[in-house]
Amino acid sequence: MIKAGIVGATGYAGAELVRLIFGHPEVEVAWYGSKSYVGEDFSSIYKNSRGFSDAECRGDDLDKMADECDVIFTATPQGYLGSVLTEEVLGRVRVIDLSADYRLKDIPAYEKWYGIEHKSPQLVEKAVYGLCELHREEIKKTRLVANPGCYTTCSILTVYPLVAEGLIDPDTIIVDAASGTSGAGRGAKVPNLFCEVNENMKPYGVTNHRHTPEIEEQLSIAAGRPVIINFTPHLAPMNRGILATAYASLVQRDGGYPTMEEIGAAYEKYYGNEYFIRLLPAGEMPETRWVEGSNFVDVGFIIDERTHRVIMVGALDNLVKGAAGQALQNMNILFDLDEKMGLEGMPMFP
Amino acid sequence: MIKAGIVGATGYAGAELVRLIFGHPEVEVAWYGSKSYVGEDFSSIYKNSRGFSDAECRGDDLDKMADECDVIFTATPQGYLGSVLTEEVLGRVRVIDLSADYRLKDIPAYEKWYGIEHKSPQLVEKAVYGLCELHREEIKKTRLVANPGCYTTCSILTVYPLVAEGLIDPDTIIVDAASGTSGAGRGAKVPNLFCEVNENMKPYGVTNHRHTPEIEEQLSIAAGRPVIINFTPHLAPMNRGILATAYASLVQRDGGYPTMEEIGAAYEKYYGNEYFIRLLPAGEMPETRWVEGSNFVDVGFIIDERTHRVIMVGALDNLVKGAAGQALQNMNILFDLDEKMGLEGMPMFP
Amino acid sequence: MIKAGIVGATGYAGAELVRLIFGHPEVEVAWYGSKSYVGEDFSSIYKNSRGFSDAECRGDDLDKMADECDVIFTATPQGYLGSVLTEEVLGRVRVIDLSADYRLKDIPAYEKWYGIEHKSPQLVEKAVYGLCELHREEIKKTRLVANPGCYTTCSILTVYPLVAEGLIDPDTIIVDAASGTSGAGRGAKVPNLFCEVNENMKPYGVTNHRHTPEIEEQLSIAAGRPVIINFTPHLAPMNRGILATAYASLVQRDGGYPTMEEIGAAYEKYYGNEYFIRLLPAGEMPETRWVEGSNFVDVGFIIDERTHRVIMVGALDNLVKGAAGQALQNMNILFDLDEKMGLEGMPMFP
Amino acid sequence: MIKAGIVGATGYAGAELVRLIFGHPEVEVAWYGSKSYVGEDFSSIYKNSRGFSDAECRGDDLDKMADECDVIFTATPQGYLGSVLTEEVLGRVRVIDLSADYRLKDIPAYEKWYGIEHKSPQLVEKAVYGLCELHREEIKKTRLVANPGCYTTCSILTVYPLVAEGLIDPDTIIVDAASGTSGAGRGAKVPNLFCEVNENMKPYGVTNHRHTPEIEEQLSIAAGRPVIINFTPHLAPMNRGILATAYASLVQRDGGYPTMEEIGAAYEKYYGNEYFIRLLPAGEMPETRWVEGSNFVDVGFIIDERTHRVIMVGALDNLVKGAAGQALQNMNILFDLDEKMGLEGMPMFP
Repeated sequence: MIKAGIVGATGYAGAELVRLIFGHPEVEVAWYGSKSYVGEDFSSIYKNSRGFSDAECRGDDLDKMADECDVIFTATPQGYLGSVLTEEVLGRVRVIDLSADYRLKDIPAYEKWYGIEHKSPQLVEKAVYGLCELHREEIKKTRLVANPGCYTTCSILTVYPLVAEGLIDPDTIIVDAASGTSGAGRGAKVPNLFCEVNENMKPYGVTNHRHTPEIEEQLSIAAGRPVIINFTPHLAPMNRGILATAYASLVQRDGGYPTMEEIGAAYEKYYGNEYFIRLLPAGEMPETRWVEGSNFVDVGFIIDERTHRVIMVGALDNLVKGAAGQALQNMNILFDLDEKMGLEGMPMFP
Repeated sequence: MIKAGIVGATGYAGAELVRLIFGHPEVEVAWYGSKSYVGEDFSSIYKNSRGFSDAECRGDDLDKMADECDVIFTATPQGYLGSVLTEEVLGRVRVIDLSADYRLKDIPAYEKWYGIEHKSPQLVEKAVYGLCELHREEIKKTRLVANPGCYTTCSILTVYPLVAEGLIDPDTIIVDAASGTSGAGRGAKVPNLFCEVNENMKPYGVTNHRHTPEIEEQLSIAAGRPVIINFTPHLAPMNRGILATAYASLVQRDGGYPTMEEIGAAYEKYYGNEYFIRLLPAGEMPETRWVEGSNFVDVGFIIDERTHRVIMVGALDNLVKGAAGQALQNMNILFDLDEKMGLEGMPMFP
Repeated sequence: MIKAGIVGATGYAGAELVRLIFGHPEVEVAWYGSKSYVGEDFSSIYKNSRGFSDAECRGDDLDKMADECDVIFTATPQGYLGSVLTEEVLGRVRVIDLSADYRLKDIPAYEKWYGIEHKSPQLVEKAVYGLCELHREEIKKTRLVANPGCYTTCSILTVYPLVAEGLIDPDTIIVDAASGTSGAGRGAKVPNLFCEVNENMKPYGVTNHRHTPEIEEQLSIAAGRPVIINFTPHLAPMNRGILATAYASLVQRDGGYPTMEEIGAAYEKYYGNEYFIRLLPAGEMPETRWVEGSNFVDVGFIIDERTHRVIMVGALDNLVKGAAGQALQNMNILFDLDEKMGLEGMPMFP
Repeated sequence: MIKAGIVGATGYAGAELVRLIFGHPEVEVAWYGSKSYVGEDFSSIYKNSRGFSDAECRGDDLDKMADECDVIFTATPQGYLGSVLTEEVLGRVRVIDLSADYRLKDIPAYEKWYGIEHKSPQLVEKAVYGLCELHREEIKKTRLVANPGCYTTCSILTVYPLVAEGLIDPDTIIVDAASGTSGAGRGAKVPNLFCEVNENMKPYGVTNHRHTPEIEEQLSIAAGRPVIINFTPHLAPMNRGILATAYASLVQRDGGYPTMEEIGAAYEKYYGNEYFIRLLPAGEMPETRWVEGSNFVDVGFIIDERTHRVIMVGALDNLVKGAAGQALQNMNILFDLDEKMGLEGMPMFP
């Protein structure tokens, strides 16, 4: 059995990782790290795990974890891992970081968008951006995976093929997205109280959400040139799910615009063999309910013939493919297991 | 007292009109029209009205209503009013239509988007589009008000001043919106069941929602030339509220782009004296919870200096300013009452 | 205009009081008290009040408030008012306390259930329990109203007449209730986060909820002897509303049990002339949606012929009749205004 | 592989069964029966099953199903199976009925509570009531399992041990319960629309809900004499979950009442070895969120020393342990598989 340590096990993403690991035949949780609940039973906090977990929460001693674990997942605030991770630790244990610390290759961008000085810039180039479907081969070879953000996984996967194939003008990309509230974390903050979120739609981080440069960096790779986009997240009154509705102008070629078939073929080319990406029939739209609890991303699109734009829509579960599920998928790749192991479940509805 | 008749009183918009009228000092409901519930007490269907209403639901005999009422509100399916309204009836009673039948001046556009033959095209030019803040003077003079749609009221008010002032390029307008489920009506349909809507975000009518031409027609007036936009509605798991997030490229002039101040001044110019439009401080974003139950529209904006786009956001209550409240506001204008009468209430939160 | 001061204006009950006062023709808020937000605009915290309130929040200097206000509402944690209120202040201003400090005449019971020493027991006998429908005459004569709790208002009104008329056995009373989450207040606590409350039903305070002795004290008055009950509250995933489902065994008399007619007559005797209590037709059950946003209490009942129990159900909006609305109703009584003033609105649905 | 046929596969319980079967290593769905969607892909209706199911829905030809299947699950309206099932069919295939047709041994009670004439009373005695934890041994020997209702599973398991051990007075049992809306089914009915259910708590079927006699029949077995109870269900604004709060008077023995320890020991005696029943520490209360998506029942209790009542609370997921999960558990028993197979998953939170 692979022994997994989790720093931040009592956050929503960390706890989802615990849940998924209990359904994975080759891994077990060897360390429940939680700053706030040291010494308390994990199952007294996440009572869904009664009868599964009988371990206590511990602190976050990376060095000791490296001794006891084969892999460490860090579901921690931005800046934490960057300030404590060393090459020495990395030499002894593989690390999958669910925070943003190693996602951006552009360190000044990281420091600007996050307002944090990067404490281990030398490790950034060792890290691989863990969007499995796009970087599978590099992930296999690394010891440090930068697990992508929830909005970013959804946004990038939704528009990547059309950028890569030159079918849309990257300068016109706008991503308008909504997220369930588990994405805001389990911190005790007034804006996340039930009565503040329920019966409300709220935009936030407009023009300055931190997932923006991450989306841009990956799309720039696809485009082969710098891409700047607009990204607008909204908080939706639901527990889980991200829906990203993306817009871009089609590129006119030989006097004509790409057709539905051509767009469909581009998606098929990139995702046709991807288990976790479900391409919808042309014109059909994803909804978050159809992916809840699963590692799937549903992607659909439609062309507006009047405006020559394509509307691309992606849906995923922010805690699974947007966090813990993808982290486990990355672990499967790292440890040369079947990439789907422990993640095959059908989404739960309703 | 003004005597009001309501056709479609047992739909959500009709019933909201009943509620608002009971809070209006100068009007009373003289006719509860409801095809499905003829002979049943209105208060046995909408039990919130227990102790207020003791009347039975009746049918929809426009001729008889014209005898008994001073004003008729029609909260009915598209095509109904268009097929029964006559100049004779209009001569005897004022009509405020909450359906789409007289909203579009472009009759072929109506017939195309709604898939219905217009049965009274000769009345279209008599109708005034009842977006009070934009067409107040014409509303005063008409007997037939085409009360705007919920998405359209929100979308148009959110972007109108910047189009009218030439600050944004109309060809780049994209409106991405979410609505509470009361906008889907009270029909017994599987997609509107609790378990289908709850914990879900769903795009629908992408590229072909019927409110699109209505938004375009009004923005074309503002622009002085035809405007075509992208409009994407989403169904959100909440009862009430519309949030419209709109995007447009700023127009470069004299080598520079409009500033936050200039954008703010444009909004101020159009809405500075409008009671029901609350302009937010620069950079602050509306949320639906702050307008729930009221006739207010909150409007905010922010410029993205990186992409030279402005993001404009509007929020309203789809059943009030998006339907019944605006209808009552139109009635106040028609009958030369204080436009705010019966609509002054503070939004209810939480 | 009556000048009202509110201590705790930025809690949910305090803010609801602000909303209601803006709809009341004879009162205005003269003092927005808020420990957490001193110096901030009230409308920057409760943005529904934009365009209504332009005042800043202030502290809670009771002495100064007594100078500036005609009435003080305290929507504060238990123990606060008890420790600061004096006869001198009471001599200058009337006080309506939304906390529990003066509700129980039985001071040892207060100290036991709340775990607080009562700092002003001498004021307890001056206070009148502000359940308007039961103590209207005494309220008229007091300067200190102990505004009842939300669960208690609902529970007491639901069972009072049947106890008072001796139709049920007080020793068999069980009240099982559910509340919307606004009842838990606006404090930043993990258990009240959206994701913790949503999609959950949770019992709490089972056998020891603090509203229990308050219900018991009033029912003891009705019974003319001590009454002990079971009261079990539940947290429901909704913003507002309390539903109380109460059970009791019918008292056999002359060989028979009370009939539906007799039960109905008892309710009618006590509430027949009460505007804010809506008695439902025999066998019909209240639901919280029909009272939302209003000061109404809907009460229904049904007899189970098999078990000779009566099931009594009450519904109200915890922030209105369960807090701010009843407080305003009490103020109307204190100031000899029409008891309904500012509270006549129809409940809002959906 | 066991071949399973499902009649009513497109209802919520049927579709949940499909989901669970795809996670079960020894079963596959061989027949998707659905009256409403014959000829349509199952995955076009329940789009969560995209990539899993590629079969079309078929009708409900029991005879043909008996040829093609090893087991038939019927998730159908009351009266359906009773009118079509024959001994001949039962001889060829095992049947697990999720409807109420064979749950009650008391046929007149069935006919009275359901208002339906029983068409195959001769099969009733062949059926075994499929509450696995109570009737495991009989289930092993039958070919017809009457899978219990959702409220009943929760209610019976919550109070059974205390009745069986004579610790509570059966004549004082009151069960007050709340259910998520998936329990109301997927029929297109106005009362189940999002806007009717959301932000509402509603009692229904008070004194006459059809699960009452089912609870009573099982508790009568436990008591060894007829038991009559009060059962009151409520509709809660959530997708899944049942919470049952039960009350009963403790039985005085030798001058004393049972203690917390004695109550705990009684539960332990019956459920100590049951995987799917999680007994909580004394005084701790279940919540529906901790069982969502799983086959677990959480049970807790507390004694009220003041009233000498015990409050017993149970929580389960109505679609899993309350329907499809228990059906699969029954199938595991019937086919001599590990009873937990396909049902081991940890509940999903949030």
